Amino acid sequence: MSLTRVSSWSSFGGTLSVHDHDSEACACTMRFAVFTPPQAKDGPVPVLWYLSGLTCNWSNVMEKSGLQRMAAELGLMVIAPDTSPRGEDVADDDSYDLGQGAGFYIDATEPPWTPHFSMQSYIVEELPALIGAEFPADMERQGIFGHSMGGHGALTLHFKQPKRFRSVSAFAPIVAPARVPWGQKAFKAYLGDECPEWGEHDACELVKRQPTEAHILVDQGEDDQLLEEQLKPELFEAACREAGQSLTLRRHPGYDHSYWFIASFMEDHLRHHAKSLTA
Amino acid sequence: MSLTRVSSWSSFGGTLSVHDHDSEACACTMRFAVFTPPQAKDGPVPVLWYLSGLTCNWSNVMEKSGLQRMAAELGLMVIAPDTSPRGEDVADDDSYDLGQGAGFYIDATEPPWTPHFSMQSYIVEELPALIGAEFPADMERQGIFGHSMGGHGALTLHFKQPKRFRSVSAFAPIVAPARVPWGQKAFKAYLGDECPEWGEHDACELVKRQPTEAHILVDQGEDDQLLEEQLKPELFEAACREAGQSLTLRRHPGYDHSYWFIASFMEDHLRHHAKSLTA
Repeated sequence: MSLTRVSSWSSFGGTLSVHDHDSEACACTMRFAVFTPPQAKDGPVPVLWYLSGLTCNWSNVMEKSGLQRMAAELGLMVIAPDTSPRGEDVADDDSYDLGQGAGFYIDATEPPWTPHFSMQSYIVEELPALIGAEFPADMERQGIFGHSMGGHGALTLHFKQPKRFRSVSAFAPIVAPARVPWGQKAFKAYLGDECPEWGEHDACELVKRQPTEAHILVDQGEDDQLLEEQLKPELFEAACREAGQSLTLRRHPGYDHSYWFIASFMEDHLRHHAKSLTA
Repeated sequence: MSLTRVSSWSSFGGTLSVHDHDSEACACTMRFAVFTPPQAKDGPVPVLWYLSGLTCNWSNVMEKSGLQRMAAELGLMVIAPDTSPRGEDVADDDSYDLGQGAGFYIDATEPPWTPHFSMQSYIVEELPALIGAEFPADMERQGIFGHSMGGHGALTLHFKQPKRFRSVSAFAPIVAPARVPWGQKAFKAYLGDECPEWGEHDACELVKRQPTEAHILVDQGEDDQLLEEQLKPELFEAACREAGQSLTLRRHPGYDHSYWFIASFMEDHLRHHAKSLTA
């Protein structure tokens, strides 16, 4: 596993670095960013995975959320992977919500997506192995969070691997992909026509099958332009209630789907994870 | 003076808004951003001007510095003007450090720049009048800061108008434009061949002519790729010492010229201004 450091900057006493590597799961070069807090000088620190939304790559959250300040204070390493495989040889679609930039954190089983679109394997298996080997990361203490499509990724990967990703939170997540247009379009393309397997990647279904011991934090802007069509947090609220899953869903008047919203509540999310990971 | 609101977002309990207006000073449409803190609901708040560096517009500092969090806590309005006039009818140059995006916060006296490049008049006269009329701003309490070319702007406009801009600070400022390539190129184009007037727009000259009562804060990264050729903070340090001007110059090992550097020390600058403006 060779790792190429593309960029590196001092930030809040720690280091923000960007890396390329040849991914086996995605069969292409993948790029990710790592914020390493100053505490890592003294030994391995907890790891927090941030999964981004449609069209994003590592830079959106690292440039616009301001997470470095509080991650440096709390001693959390934060990793921002890309949202899909990319490249000229990688299948794509003209729309923004399918193909490159829209991996949905699942392993595709349908052509033309199968050779590259294995984002679940990449995030759950391949990239953690690389991080554990190459960075001062304590892989016994991992949390996961994300935004929109990345909120879907964070919730579903937590339910799939509750011992791996011990803490979980999300900003404006897609909680019921099998029942909203974004998720239906992606699942149909990547997994084939509607089938029971769709439910294995749907947070509302997963929580009912097997709730976890985690306390989940979800923030949602009430002026989010995608709230009613794509996000439907009330479905997750009801599913958690039914399953006995501990959840705090906060609805914020005036906030939309943007990084201005995420930045405003980032500190709360980092503190939420630190409570579980640094106790 | 008609003002068009281009965008508006909730942010940290306040509002970030972007506006267009027809500028008389620059003879074109100018765009700026305003962060209005939540305290403005209860009455006028102090105003802090942030002047950006070469190639930037309002978005760089608003997206990348994280200033909204602490501005909301301290109750400061922050305004980010553009760095020059812009448009198809506005003179330009192929290089990044002259013309559009490189106004240097002075009023040009040479063609082809004269009809539009009057950034000093714009920042000192026209835009404050508009802000005072249209926003909940206490124009008796104004501070100014900036980065690189905008650090030059902040320092020189403070020295030109010490009662207007009561507090001042800068990130990696151009402190001696008359003596470094960036400034010499711009001054020659906008003001003509080297002449005494250059000194009227050079912080190192201005401080010697008339120091102010302000305490100036300057942060500088020691790994700044422009440190030795363009920035030369030691010249300003010596000029302040000679003039009896109060200055704190902090040199930070490992930091470069980027917004990762600015974001890391933004909170200190906002607290520095609040100390003078909200006392």
